[in-house]
Amino acid sequence: MIKIAIYGKGGIGKSTTASNLSAAFAAMGKRVMQIGCDPKADSTTLLHGGTPRKTVLDLIREKGKTIALDEMITRGYGGVYCVEAGGPTPGMGCAGRGIIAALETLEEKEAFSILRPDIVLYDVLGDVVCGGFAMPIREGYARKVFVVTSGENMAIHAAANIAMAVENFKSRGYASLGGIILNRRGVPREQEKVEELAADTGSRIVGALHWSETVQRAEELKKTVIEAFPESEMAGEYRTLAEQVLAAYGEDDA
Amino acid sequence: MIKIAIYGKGGIGKSTTASNLSAAFAAMGKRVMQIGCDPKADSTTLLHGGTPRKTVLDLIREKGKTIALDEMITRGYGGVYCVEAGGPTPGMGCAGRGIIAALETLEEKEAFSILRPDIVLYDVLGDVVCGGFAMPIREGYARKVFVVTSGENMAIHAAANIAMAVENFKSRGYASLGGIILNRRGVPREQEKVEELAADTGSRIVGALHWSETVQRAEELKKTVIEAFPESEMAGEYRTLAEQVLAAYGEDDA
Ligand SMILES: Nc1ncnc2c1ncn2[C@@H]1O[C@H](COP(=O)(O)OP(=O)(O)O)[C@@H](O)[C@H]1O
Ligand SMILES: Nc1ncnc2c1ncn2[C@@H]1O[C@H](COP(=O)(O)OP(=O)(O)O)[C@@H](O)[C@H]1O
Ligand code: SF4
Ligand code: SF4
Ligand SMILES: [Mg+2]
Ligand SMILES: [Mg+2]
Repeated sequence: MIKIAIYGKGGIGKSTTASNLSAAFAAMGKRVMQIGCDPKADSTTLLHGGTPRKTVLDLIREKGKTIALDEMITRGYGGVYCVEAGGPTPGMGCAGRGIIAALETLEEKEAFSILRPDIVLYDVLGDVVCGGFAMPIREGYARKVFVVTSGENMAIHAAANIAMAVENFKSRGYASLGGIILNRRGVPREQEKVEELAADTGSRIVGALHWSETVQRAEELKKTVIEAFPESEMAGEYRTLAEQVLAAYGEDDA
Repeated sequence: MIKIAIYGKGGIGKSTTASNLSAAFAAMGKRVMQIGCDPKADSTTLLHGGTPRKTVLDLIREKGKTIALDEMITRGYGGVYCVEAGGPTPGMGCAGRGIIAALETLEEKEAFSILRPDIVLYDVLGDVVCGGFAMPIREGYARKVFVVTSGENMAIHAAANIAMAVENFKSRGYASLGGIILNRRGVPREQEKVEELAADTGSRIVGALHWSETVQRAEELKKTVIEAFPESEMAGEYRTLAEQVLAAYGEDDA
């Protein structure tokens, strides 16, 4: 089982990238599960067209331990298993608790051994890297962390902080850094700044995406680019990224 | 009671700066308490010449609730009350717990109402801004956060992350950003990079220090510059900084 965590600053394009990666992996014939670990709870929207659904934390609040596995999981495009942890906004109560509770509940309900995904993607907000938000990189949930950033300063700062947190939390069985995904915004010196970040954090850029209208048009349809515009250049970029992420995942495991 | 937290990346000069500020405040006739919130537990070394001492977490482990206030506190230069929280290295168990336990114990033993300091300085490692390390900026311990940084990239990233965390944790009664302290290392474009950080985080540079041999010589004597070389230029810089920090602390309270 390939276990990947996507971290990055809020609004940087984690969920869009994660959903397109999931869709691309599904199109390769993989069984995929995407777990949204962001209080916004919109990680998997593009995979299931925004079907109204409850987060794991909502379900736990309502039903406690009696919650069933299939209540937590929606099936989306390409059969992707979609989960949203849920939780309050950081600062307004413990946002990390949603993640902790969701992951523990999935574990208890044996989600991974029953559904047997080939690839699990955690989509995690990286603005606060506390115990709660670090959960997916601890306890063996994710094995490799990919950090999404543009060349904007605050996105780079957040990315560096996530890389430092991965380094700090690194110990037996925890996740390591898989690399940086550059999601371009067209700011000055973008490539150069992100390459500097990679050097500073002992990492590298594993793949890069352009900022594209196609992504926006697919979003209006509540779909991934892979689903809505499979022939577009942007779909090609996401498919290439999917290959690059898999290659980067495997590399250090040799 | 003025309640200040000094945050910043490990090794950036927080403890040296905090100790010199404490010494400068003491020389102004203030009653000062400095609380080290870094697992290194060396925050107050320059104030008491490195007298061997136990951290609050050590004492709690040994004695539990029977621990007395004066066991936790050493008096240093100028009568400064020195406390070290202690705790394991981040990643090796919960380093934040040392801080939580120490602050709660000080509160229980009524340290603040008995000793009545005019100024309390928290010296906090900013590499991991989790619940534990955020403790001093929560629950009303510190009111203003000053972030120490040089122009080195990783120090700037950490500083931006701390500023984001202060912003995220901001709510009723929590601390706000007081400003940035530039502790120069002489890297290219140093002032410019830190000014950019200030702009990005909606903050400003409240004071700046030069990298100085005098600091190193004082450290060899296990003393602050204020104590060892009170006539030096560097002592003047620390005294100026003490004034600047007080001014920045007061400003928003009007
Ligand atoms: N490569 C891209 N080109 C165009 N728009 C993008 C791209 N990546 C993300 N976006 C847009 O940016 C916005 C934020 O993306 P989202 O994935 O929700 O961010 P996050 O999950 O990091 O908070 C969305 O409107 C999304 O469509
Ligand atoms: N302005 C300065 N000039 C010269 N040396 C400095 C200066 N500030 C800090 N240092 C040195 O840097 C080292 C790390 O400082 P320290 O205060 O222990 O960092 P921190 O508490 O942030 O981990 C110490 O050896 C200290 O003497
Ligand atoms: S785990 Fe994170 S989100 Fe939860 S209270 Fe602690 S710092 Fe806040
Ligand atoms: S509070 Fe901080 S130091 Fe403690 S376990 Fe959580 S993340 Fe680690
Ligand atoms: Mg998202
Ligand atoms: Mg220190």
